[in-house]
Amino acid sequence: KSRYNNEMYKTANMPGVAVGLAWTYVGGDILFIETTTSDNGKGELKLTGNLGNVMKESASTAMTYLQANAKKYGINPDVFNKKNVHVHVPEGAVPKDGPSAGITMMTALASSFTGRKVKPYLAMTGEITLRGQVLPVGGIKEKVLAAKRAGLKEIIMSVQNEKDVEEINPNFIKGLKVNYVKTMQQVLDLALL
Amino acid sequence: KSRYNNEMYKTANMPGVAVGLAWTYVGGDILFIETTTSDNGKGELKLTGNLGNVMKESASTAMTYLQANAKKYGINPDVFNKKNVHVHVPEGAVPKDGPSAGITMMTALASSFTGRKVKPYLAMTGEITLRGQVLPVGGIKEKVLAAKRAGLKEIIMSVQNEKDVEEINPNFIKGLKVNYVKTMQQVLDLALL
Amino acid sequence: KSRYNNEMYKTANMPGVAVGLAWTYVGGDILFIETTTSDNGKGELKLTGNLGNVMKESASTAMTYLQANAKKYGINPDVFNKKNVHVHVPEGAVPKDGPSAGITMMTALASSFTGRKVKPYLAMTGEITLRGQVLPVGGIKEKVLAAKRAGLKEIIMSVQNEKDVEEINPNFIKGLKVNYVKTMQQVLDLALL
Amino acid sequence: KSRYNNEMYKTANMPGVAVGLAWTYVGGDILFIETTTSDNGKGELKLTGNLGNVMKESASTAMTYLQANAKKYGINPDVFNKKNVHVHVPEGAVPKDGPSAGITMMTALASSFTGRKVKPYLAMTGEITLRGQVLPVGGIKEKVLAAKRAGLKEIIMSVQNEKDVEEINPNFIKGLKVNYVKTMQQVLDLALL
Amino acid sequence: KSRYNNEMYKTANMPGVAVGLAWTYVGGDILFIETTTSDNGKGELKLTGNLGNVMKESASTAMTYLQANAKKYGINPDVFNKKNVHVHVPEGAVPKDGPSAGITMMTALASSFTGRKVKPYLAMTGEITLRGQVLPVGGIKEKVLAAKRAGLKEIIMSVQNEKDVEEINPNFIKGLKVNYVKTMQQVLDLALL
Amino acid sequence: KSRYNNEMYKTANMPGVAVGLAWTYVGGDILFIETTTSDNGKGELKLTGNLGNVMKESASTAMTYLQANAKKYGINPDVFNKKNVHVHVPEGAVPKDGPSAGITMMTALASSFTGRKVKPYLAMTGEITLRGQVLPVGGIKEKVLAAKRAGLKEIIMSVQNEKDVEEINPNFIKGLKVNYVKTMQQVLDLALL
Ligand SMILES: [Ca+2]
Ligand SMILES: [Ca+2]
Ligand SMILES: [Ca+2]
Ligand SMILES: [Ca+2]
Ligand SMILES: [Ca+2]
Ligand SMILES: [Ca+2]
Ligand SMILES: [Ca+2]
Ligand SMILES: [Ca+2]
Ligand SMILES: [Ca+2]
Ligand SMILES: [Ca+2]
Ligand SMILES: [Ca+2]
Ligand SMILES: [Ca+2]
Repeated sequence: KSRYNNEMYKTANMPGVAVGLAWTYVGGDILFIETTTSDNGKGELKLTGNLGNVMKESASTAMTYLQANAKKYGINPDVFNKKNVHVHVPEGAVPKDGPSAGITMMTALASSFTGRKVKPYLAMTGEITLRGQVLPVGGIKEKVLAAKRAGLKEIIMSVQNEKDVEEINPNFIKGLKVNYVKTMQQVLDLALL
Repeated sequence: KSRYNNEMYKTANMPGVAVGLAWTYVGGDILFIETTTSDNGKGELKLTGNLGNVMKESASTAMTYLQANAKKYGINPDVFNKKNVHVHVPEGAVPKDGPSAGITMMTALASSFTGRKVKPYLAMTGEITLRGQVLPVGGIKEKVLAAKRAGLKEIIMSVQNEKDVEEINPNFIKGLKVNYVKTMQQVLDLALL
Repeated sequence: KSRYNNEMYKTANMPGVAVGLAWTYVGGDILFIETTTSDNGKGELKLTGNLGNVMKESASTAMTYLQANAKKYGINPDVFNKKNVHVHVPEGAVPKDGPSAGITMMTALASSFTGRKVKPYLAMTGEITLRGQVLPVGGIKEKVLAAKRAGLKEIIMSVQNEKDVEEINPNFIKGLKVNYVKTMQQVLDLALL
Repeated sequence: KSRYNNEMYKTANMPGVAVGLAWTYVGGDILFIETTTSDNGKGELKLTGNLGNVMKESASTAMTYLQANAKKYGINPDVFNKKNVHVHVPEGAVPKDGPSAGITMMTALASSFTGRKVKPYLAMTGEITLRGQVLPVGGIKEKVLAAKRAGLKEIIMSVQNEKDVEEINPNFIKGLKVNYVKTMQQVLDLALL
Repeated sequence: KSRYNNEMYKTANMPGVAVGLAWTYVGGDILFIETTTSDNGKGELKLTGNLGNVMKESASTAMTYLQANAKKYGINPDVFNKKNVHVHVPEGAVPKDGPSAGITMMTALASSFTGRKVKPYLAMTGEITLRGQVLPVGGIKEKVLAAKRAGLKEIIMSVQNEKDVEEINPNFIKGLKVNYVKTMQQVLDLALL
Repeated sequence: KSRYNNEMYKTANMPGVAVGLAWTYVGGDILFIETTTSDNGKGELKLTGNLGNVMKESASTAMTYLQANAKKYGINPDVFNKKNVHVHVPEGAVPKDGPSAGITMMTALASSFTGRKVKPYLAMTGEITLRGQVLPVGGIKEKVLAAKRAGLKEIIMSVQNEKDVEEINPNFIKGLKVNYVKTMQQVLDLALL
């Protein structure tokens, strides 16, 4: 029933794409975050996909974090001055907002900037801070079940959301591995191949 | 009864013009997407035709996709830096929005940038992603019937919309060929002469 | 009774001015479109006269069409880069919108750019496309009667509006010549002296 | 009772200031239009005084007219490129809008650009066009009575407003001279000393 | 009871700070206007403190007046091109608007630009014009009583507000000196040390 | 119960981060203000975290204050022209506004610009002015109790808020040291290590 079958994951399996978990008015859902960089740019960040202001701010915050930590992650600093970056979230008919796509935005951008692909069958949800922390988010139960329905095998979220996962009936999420993290470095260590 | 007769198709038959299928408040309808490039520009994208934000984002996403894949499609990269591009959708009295014009925008732009005309009597509908995928859209029944009424002979849409076409009475769409695609490359292979 | 008597037409009879037909909340009315170009500019387009977004888009579309076809109409391409263009529609107390002023905008601009005057006692109404087509518009009966009342002698509109004129009692528009066109080139051939 | 007594006229008597007639929610009123130019500018036009969009457009239209006719009025064309112009309308607590301040804006700007003062005890009201015509405006009775109350001695308006003045009881406006004009050149001939 | 005691006046006693009188939704109140200039700027004016459009326009008008009269007041004209100016009005929780802070804005800016301090225990209220006039404002009774409550000793306002002060019971404002002015030059002569 | 335990303070303990006290629709709460500077910038200030206009103005005011006093605090003036500054306030799902984060913004920025860390277990609340004063704010009782709940040990606020703290039952805030200040210099002397 899920629209995102194995074949689509194969397509998604290119640098710059990461899978997030969102909580929309139709319940939990998975969300592809796509990024492309273009040469001859001026460090501009373009955001499309019917995104609200808070989600746009997440992308902006992720950019600043990656710029400040470019050396640590092996990112060429020119990407912030001499390229343009486009972040797109498909399914434009659905308005999307909130801070919970933060670590997914950050991961997709890091993947695009380093050329390293994101691990397949992996999704994530969590707010980011400029200090590199991962904050907990709401709607965990709905998001985790959506990930299971879509055939995903692994999730990353904040340690502060562990209690929310423990409230879900284990039979419903059998075979789904959940990684609890505190920092964005842990996210990238788990997510980038 | 249709306003878009054979003669108008002849007029439309120039590089930069593609026919989309839209779902407006008057039901299904066909939609011309027109693009023109002008020299001495700065890579600016101008969008007119009473378009909503989501449809404008589609054009922006199509531009980024074509820039990232310029080499593959034989597009001179200067178009993204040294020309201005104007996308216009006629019938300004009708507000237009939604992501479903994505592949039509992309096709019209590719046609304009390559100088290759779009196949006549062909329409299309589908959302685009930065990865080059074609996503399904709503209102398929109304759109397909509008295409038939207007005298069109061929349609392109996402494979994920095949089930929606199967629900239409075959007698109503006799003689109309529907192409189901997964990627934007397939769209351009079918659409550009 | 009309405020636009012979004497005012004389004043209007300078390059850059064309007469349109509009349908406002007081019924059909005639509309002067005035354009001026100034040297030492940067290709900027200024639009005044209490215009809505769709009417502003018409002016922008007309500019792109004329730039793309500058050679054909004998327009110096510098006007699009080194001059500023101001389009003004008098009677600022009346909000104006919709696509039907498109061919009038285009004609006034072409007149200003070529230095050729527009034929006197001529009005027009029609939407424009980037392909150079003239699309039909609404409110034809009210517009034609307004033209008659104002003492105009000739009108240009889309062939697709012919059926709307045929529904008007011929006695009401005796002496008024109506030209039906398909393309903007036909408009300019008829309108520019 | 009028706040604008002889002494204030003396103050107003400097280049760049003209008196208009407005129709606000408290009835007819007089309106000072003040303009200042500053060196080392870039041809920018700043508008203050709680003005609505239509009144702002009047100032913009006046600027284009004066630039296009700079030679005829002896205006140094540098004012449009190398100076900044500030138009201010006092009494910021009162929102002001509409096209009727057009000829007053134009006169104040012409006065500022030529260094010629505006005739004292003179007010005016009328819409402007890019062709240099003066169009009629509403609220003539209230405006004329306000001018009389304020101690003004002379008014300029469109010939098309003559019928509105004829409907006022002559006893109420005894001693007030009304000049009817068709063109902006006539306005400047009457207004600039 | 007033929050602005002697000690705070001492703090306020630096160039660039002036005290205004405002009429907010809690009644009459005093208002500090603070200005700072920064080197390496581009003549930009930054306005903060939860200010409405009309109050922002006052600051803009004050800047233009001071630039036009820079020589007379001994202001280095570079401040308008090569510095940035920040005007801040504390107590950000209270929305502030209206033209009555005009002379206070103008005085604070003049103080900052000349390096001359504003006289202590002095407040002011009045609208400004580009001609250098001081116009009357509303809410005089509430403003004067607020000044008295706050321990202020002297006020500046328009001569046209004299009648409003005369309606206040003299016992309530004993010891408070009121200066009535017509021009901004008189304001600066009284206010700058 | 507080989400900000000792471990998170350790993470927070880097230059550019300060803890504020806010009053949101769920009551008093603590608030992390994070700042990052990036090289190759143009003195731009980016603000994220779902902030209202008044809170954004606080950051802008803090920047101007620090620029004007750069020498006194040992800040390299290049940060205001050649770097970009990003201020982020986590928990994007909660709208934040009001002036009370002013001194926290100012402290976080000063910490980032000087490289000096902020004292751990310290929070603060207070409005700032361009003169360097600290103004009182509302909601003190709720804010102080939130600081206690979160395990903080020390608070900075305006002397004018002392009376608000005295109204709190001392048993509820045992072990919490409150510093009352008048100026921003006092804030930085207390806060920066
Ligand atoms: Ca979905
Ligand atoms: Ca997510
Ligand atoms: Ca249609
Ligand atoms: Ca479509
Ligand atoms: Ca009319
Ligand atoms: Ca028309
Ligand atoms: Ca008045
Ligand atoms: Ca007027
Ligand atoms: Ca106060
Ligand atoms: Ca005031
Ligand atoms: Ca919190
Ligand atoms: Ca705070």
